[in-house]
Amino acid sequence: MFSETFKEVLGKEGVVAIVSCADGEAHVVNTWNSYLTPAGEDRLLIPAWKMRKTEEKVRKNAKVLLTVGSKEVQGRMGPGTGFYLEGTARFLKEGPEYDMMKSRFSFVTRVLEVTVTAIKQTL
Amino acid sequence: MFSETFKEVLGKEGVVAIVSCADGEAHVVNTWNSYLTPAGEDRLLIPAWKMRKTEEKVRKNAKVLLTVGSKEVQGRMGPGTGFYLEGTARFLKEGPEYDMMKSRFSFVTRVLEVTVTAIKQTL
Repeated sequence: MFSETFKEVLGKEGVVAIVSCADGEAHVVNTWNSYLTPAGEDRLLIPAWKMRKTEEKVRKNAKVLLTVGSKEVQGRMGPGTGFYLEGTARFLKEGPEYDMMKSRFSFVTRVLEVTVTAIKQTL
Repeated sequence: MFSETFKEVLGKEGVVAIVSCADGEAHVVNTWNSYLTPAGEDRLLIPAWKMRKTEEKVRKNAKVLLTVGSKEVQGRMGPGTGFYLEGTARFLKEGPEYDMMKSRFSFVTRVLEVTVTAIKQTL
């Protein structure tokens, strides 16, 4: 599910948007490209420190949208590419994947796990 | 409304997220930091090529959220800063500001004007 171009983007630093939606209201929070940690075929693990409003939204509606990109990676129209992802989110508070992320990102209070259901290269 | 740090971020290339929400569903589309064009005290002009779903959402609910940041600009916790903006959006199809944007971005079919109502440095 994660193409070489997608992985190349994760290797360039930039701002990721994580969008959640519940009660007729969207919320957006950011992380860094380099913090997105692919796990298995279709999951991303993301270190969470605050993200309290995202957690509240996800509890009501687990569907999330993510965007990530980099001007430094070649896209279909020249320099710069981006990806749009849809997925299902949950927050992990324990377990081997939580421990792995905690050892990598000491500030972690929870881990946002996104099971990606669709990924589209937008540029 | 637009701080020096905010303007510094616009000078570094990166991915902006523009989030709209209507009919209980969020939508997100991207642009580049360098495409955000401050106008007056509290407005941003953004070149639009497609953005059809965003336009459809904005017609029903004009409130949008934007995030923009850069790892290359110093934040409050070290290298990297980001901004979260709330605003009211509309699409311009003509007029002097449309013409100015069209001359700068030849691909423009409309201009997304965001009147910013809140801006918060998140990092």
